[in-house]
Amino acid sequence: MSIGLGLIGTGFMGKAHALAYRAAGAVFGDLPDVRLALLCDTPADKAATMARQFGFAAATDDWHVLVESPEVAIVSITTPNGMHREMALAAIAAGKHVHCEKPMALTLEDAREMEAAARAAGVRTIVGYSYIHNPAFAHAKRLIAEGVIGRPVHFRGVVDEDYQADPDLPWTWRAKRADAGLGTLGDLGCHLVSMAIGLMGEVESLVADTQIIHATRPLADGSGQGAVENEDAATAILRFESGAQGALSTSRSAWGRKNKLDFEVHGTRGMIAFSQERMNELQLYVNDGPRAQQGFRTILSGPEHPPYGAFCPAPGHQLGFGDLKTIEAASFLRAIAAGEPVHPDFAAALGFEAVIHAIDVSAREGRRVQL
Amino acid sequence: MSIGLGLIGTGFMGKAHALAYRAAGAVFGDLPDVRLALLCDTPADKAATMARQFGFAAATDDWHVLVESPEVAIVSITTPNGMHREMALAAIAAGKHVHCEKPMALTLEDAREMEAAARAAGVRTIVGYSYIHNPAFAHAKRLIAEGVIGRPVHFRGVVDEDYQADPDLPWTWRAKRADAGLGTLGDLGCHLVSMAIGLMGEVESLVADTQIIHATRPLADGSGQGAVENEDAATAILRFESGAQGALSTSRSAWGRKNKLDFEVHGTRGMIAFSQERMNELQLYVNDGPRAQQGFRTILSGPEHPPYGAFCPAPGHQLGFGDLKTIEAASFLRAIAAGEPVHPDFAAALGFEAVIHAIDVSAREGRRVQL
Amino acid sequence: MSIGLGLIGTGFMGKAHALAYRAAGAVFGDLPDVRLALLCDTPADKAATMARQFGFAAATDDWHVLVESPEVAIVSITTPNGMHREMALAAIAAGKHVHCEKPMALTLEDAREMEAAARAAGVRTIVGYSYIHNPAFAHAKRLIAEGVIGRPVHFRGVVDEDYQADPDLPWTWRAKRADAGLGTLGDLGCHLVSMAIGLMGEVESLVADTQIIHATRPLADGSGQGAVENEDAATAILRFESGAQGALSTSRSAWGRKNKLDFEVHGTRGMIAFSQERMNELQLYVNDGPRAQQGFRTILSGPEHPPYGAFCPAPGHQLGFGDLKTIEAASFLRAIAAGEPVHPDFAAALGFEAVIHAIDVSAREGRRVQL
Amino acid sequence: MSIGLGLIGTGFMGKAHALAYRAAGAVFGDLPDVRLALLCDTPADKAATMARQFGFAAATDDWHVLVESPEVAIVSITTPNGMHREMALAAIAAGKHVHCEKPMALTLEDAREMEAAARAAGVRTIVGYSYIHNPAFAHAKRLIAEGVIGRPVHFRGVVDEDYQADPDLPWTWRAKRADAGLGTLGDLGCHLVSMAIGLMGEVESLVADTQIIHATRPLADGSGQGAVENEDAATAILRFESGAQGALSTSRSAWGRKNKLDFEVHGTRGMIAFSQERMNELQLYVNDGPRAQQGFRTILSGPEHPPYGAFCPAPGHQLGFGDLKTIEAASFLRAIAAGEPVHPDFAAALGFEAVIHAIDVSAREGRRVQL
Repeated sequence: MSIGLGLIGTGFMGKAHALAYRAAGAVFGDLPDVRLALLCDTPADKAATMARQFGFAAATDDWHVLVESPEVAIVSITTPNGMHREMALAAIAAGKHVHCEKPMALTLEDAREMEAAARAAGVRTIVGYSYIHNPAFAHAKRLIAEGVIGRPVHFRGVVDEDYQADPDLPWTWRAKRADAGLGTLGDLGCHLVSMAIGLMGEVESLVADTQIIHATRPLADGSGQGAVENEDAATAILRFESGAQGALSTSRSAWGRKNKLDFEVHGTRGMIAFSQERMNELQLYVNDGPRAQQGFRTILSGPEHPPYGAFCPAPGHQLGFGDLKTIEAASFLRAIAAGEPVHPDFAAALGFEAVIHAIDVSAREGRRVQL
Repeated sequence: MSIGLGLIGTGFMGKAHALAYRAAGAVFGDLPDVRLALLCDTPADKAATMARQFGFAAATDDWHVLVESPEVAIVSITTPNGMHREMALAAIAAGKHVHCEKPMALTLEDAREMEAAARAAGVRTIVGYSYIHNPAFAHAKRLIAEGVIGRPVHFRGVVDEDYQADPDLPWTWRAKRADAGLGTLGDLGCHLVSMAIGLMGEVESLVADTQIIHATRPLADGSGQGAVENEDAATAILRFESGAQGALSTSRSAWGRKNKLDFEVHGTRGMIAFSQERMNELQLYVNDGPRAQQGFRTILSGPEHPPYGAFCPAPGHQLGFGDLKTIEAASFLRAIAAGEPVHPDFAAALGFEAVIHAIDVSAREGRRVQL
Repeated sequence: MSIGLGLIGTGFMGKAHALAYRAAGAVFGDLPDVRLALLCDTPADKAATMARQFGFAAATDDWHVLVESPEVAIVSITTPNGMHREMALAAIAAGKHVHCEKPMALTLEDAREMEAAARAAGVRTIVGYSYIHNPAFAHAKRLIAEGVIGRPVHFRGVVDEDYQADPDLPWTWRAKRADAGLGTLGDLGCHLVSMAIGLMGEVESLVADTQIIHATRPLADGSGQGAVENEDAATAILRFESGAQGALSTSRSAWGRKNKLDFEVHGTRGMIAFSQERMNELQLYVNDGPRAQQGFRTILSGPEHPPYGAFCPAPGHQLGFGDLKTIEAASFLRAIAAGEPVHPDFAAALGFEAVIHAIDVSAREGRRVQL
Repeated sequence: MSIGLGLIGTGFMGKAHALAYRAAGAVFGDLPDVRLALLCDTPADKAATMARQFGFAAATDDWHVLVESPEVAIVSITTPNGMHREMALAAIAAGKHVHCEKPMALTLEDAREMEAAARAAGVRTIVGYSYIHNPAFAHAKRLIAEGVIGRPVHFRGVVDEDYQADPDLPWTWRAKRADAGLGTLGDLGCHLVSMAIGLMGEVESLVADTQIIHATRPLADGSGQGAVENEDAATAILRFESGAQGALSTSRSAWGRKNKLDFEVHGTRGMIAFSQERMNELQLYVNDGPRAQQGFRTILSGPEHPPYGAFCPAPGHQLGFGDLKTIEAASFLRAIAAGEPVHPDFAAALGFEAVIHAIDVSAREGRRVQL
């Protein structure tokens, strides 16, 4: 019997989910069948049009209907962040598995409520931290686990884009804490945290500072300037539970950066470095062999880095962003079929998002924050 | 009414076609419906299994059945190159549109026959020169057309992989001219030619040389060595009809290269450079503005480079190889619906493949060859 | 009349100074003559041998003799950091101009004393922050001053090497605070600070954390383990007086990094990025012209970036580390001849080194430190 | 007793020679003393001024005087290429050692005459093929000699600059074969040949084509257009005596390329790649260890790559173009002291230059040319 998918939202992430669930079964031979059951957007004709384009069996403009539909076993939530909580709680209450985009919620309290509800209901959850599904990232984790770079002792990361770099961009609700929550930390920073924790383990404490680069932005109606309430940039210095330390920085106002999501793991025997804008490459340095031949190796993703081979048997042919979403969807389908948790579920995502909120607290209160 | 797809083959390219036709309609909102009608492979149970995985309605182990099926309007041919001609001619005879993997055929004569048959029958054709569907490649063409780098005067290209670099790999039928046709020119070189012609126009003549790097390979049964009959590497110096010149090199025995398919177009005002292993980047140099600020720009693919935006509204998120196939499939579906030719059809592909055969002739006969 | 140079030390930096002062006059046509008057090292025969190799007129094993010599107008101090203060104070007392390697001293108090003495005596001073003499760095400053990237709002920097990455390296005096002062902050971090201040202006305050990665190291005599007392890694989050913010990280235990000294300046119209391991390249992104053609430009150093042209009239031919020292020496000679200050003199260097000590204080005391 | 240097020319290469001979002894501890004896340029006051700047003991405006001077043991020739032959023959006739810039001469006949004269006279010679003195190049040769990449089977090279890319540049004597000889082959191509032969051994035969991109250029006096008689671009396909093959291309009209002098050596076990614009990096791929960890290593030049350490004991600090000239001068001084040949002497350079002339012949006559 196939698993019915109900998808809420048809924007950037909505389309990404639709494409991923369409592709997953054909890419991987070991998945349960998934049925594109119901698509929700507003207004109704848009929902119908997109359902036709994406191949959904039906459409609705009422997400409550979707959440309650007996045709739907998975609810995919790709709406603006402020709506995640209500939709997820309703889906959980209806006994659905939930695939929620990141961040889970605007506040940590909301995220905690969502996690507790999912745990109590025993449904499967996954949050859209897509970058950790990259075969290159999985390879980095494997190399660390195998001791190839020794003990990880230091972490560095940045995640920058430039969608808020232009001072002349108009003010939007995204600049308002009550509506949008955090700024670059919620949009970008949490992705980097998902990688940092994946590679280094849990964070013990941190000190941080944040920056509003463009204090005001012109109101769209020309009536003046609106205040920007959430951070354009942030930096945190981390202490991990392992004793390792590290740093991460993020900016949504970094001209020229389109999806720069970079990390370095410094080990006692070597280093691993990665840059999302070249997501099919992993840099590895190992203190091994003749010193005169040592250097960072650029490892191109290929079939030796599962599940790359499910997409393409030839190395160097490049996966794209959409393929990461396909891996994410496949993981969720497998977990549902197996009745087992998947990474990153609400509990894991809560851990990621606790860090970005701790950064915010540290910056506002000027003190070290324990996780 | 939807267009029925019949796909022959489920290997690397077979899967790529299946995924592409599954995705195309959901990615692009303007396509005619396509129906995954019939999948052919041998043995029959493999065909059935893969049909289930790929989402085809039916399966067969007899490609003649597929070609004749009234459910099938497009025949996708992804079998070994030596089988393309027979299958394509049969499909054309049955009035089907043909999506054929590259190279079209083992010999230029066969390719000519295929092109003539398709032309006579008035069916639509497309050949799997996927790399020219890259938004970055389209952007390069557009920049040239707009005069951004002035008049194109010189071309450079290489296409290298390492799948035949290891001297200890066993002999296979791929080393035999009668079965496999050309070597690296047919596997890789023709892709580069498709780019060279796309950017620079038709080739007028060339001089070339080829090289068999590993003269023999161990027979799989341990009974000795088998001769390698086709080239491991080749270089050609081109004169284009425009008066521009250029060079291209290819090797299937280039350790470390996984999909290095690089070109440079030298213009009178600037240069464009590209490397497939970083397929989401285009390098552009323009002799413009203060000299002290001039440099090669790394342009990351984004929504400004159609049809990137159909996959993702955010720049820098990276398309993958599979996405190129999706664009290819979409182009074909649009052409069929519109009753218009698409690039590269059999006629265009014949032009590409004439060049690789001319390289072979020039090398064997030690003379300049006119196209 | 020529200016006599007295050089103390013949190691890495001693040789670098010798080569720089030998070359400066021939590279630049506008310098006062410099005479390699006296070289000091111990023992005496080493001093004599190196004087012969470096082309010094005389040698001594007593730095007091050098400092007092009437042949000497400039005293170059390239000895271990703990000796800088005493030598510099003696040279200043003798009325000599002082070219001192960085960091000025082990403690901020010592550095302050040196600066005050030089100021009181009216001698010229320069500190060996060589990287800011790179034509590419000067170009970055010029681009910022011209507003090419708008108002600088954010800074990022890292400076990493791997000379203390190996856990098995023996304990040396460099691990002892009393003898060596700070760790990676004094060796590497201060270089980055010299760049940060040069690009962004003065630092107002910071929060920081430091890390000792290898808590102990084996004693050379095999008698056990010695404690490492100074930091292997450090990160600071900076607030500049301009209102800009930023972050810098440094590690001496970063496998594979040989001289990674990288910075980014985020502006309201663009970004500049630089990496010392590719010191002849500057990355520039400007939000200008068609969006589809925007990208980071790799600007190769050339004659448009003074004083590159004094070394070589052809762009892209590459300057080396030694050439930076030659520019530094030339700057000092010009300043002496003109009777004017040069950057970075003791006062400027004191400003740089105040920052690394503030980082240390912030880390040890867990609080924001005002500069 | 010291060796007297007489230098003819004070332009780009003249200055480079002066700086190199000034620095060599101080960099390397094992060299015979060299004395900057006599500098020649015209007019006389320029010679005097530059002698003062460069540190030469005397100046002349008559190169015959220099060549005959008893103070001079080495004659360095850095004048326009058309003057090399006459000066070198005179210097040889006077029993001087000759350091000649490349190419040796305008024609192969002239170069042969020079080589024969030097051989007959028993003087030492060296030609300014500076790039093969790069420690990274020496390391590449060593890696090949040690079998690290197996047997070299294929070579690729390009050498491009953009000093003749602008169609509006005025006509100069450099466009005239009688005065300038070959075009880009003589300026740039011969450098690449010096690398190809150094890495792969002698060339057996080749086929080639050349291109004049800008057929005419505006005459400086505004009287019309002057014809360009020598090639702007060239490509050759090489067969080496070893059985390896390869290709090389060169252009002086390649916008954005400042000193792109790149090569790849394909071996049976790996590959080496190099790019002069990043002259402190060597790329190495070896088919060794786990396939999932294979990749091109970026080896940064350091003390493990002699003679880097003579300049700097710290890796990654970067040598520059001038340092290559210093190594070249040092090699020559050592050879003179030892009474032994040095690479590349006139005989070796004749071998390099035979190849560029063969390329020219092949292109003009449309046939394979044997070396």
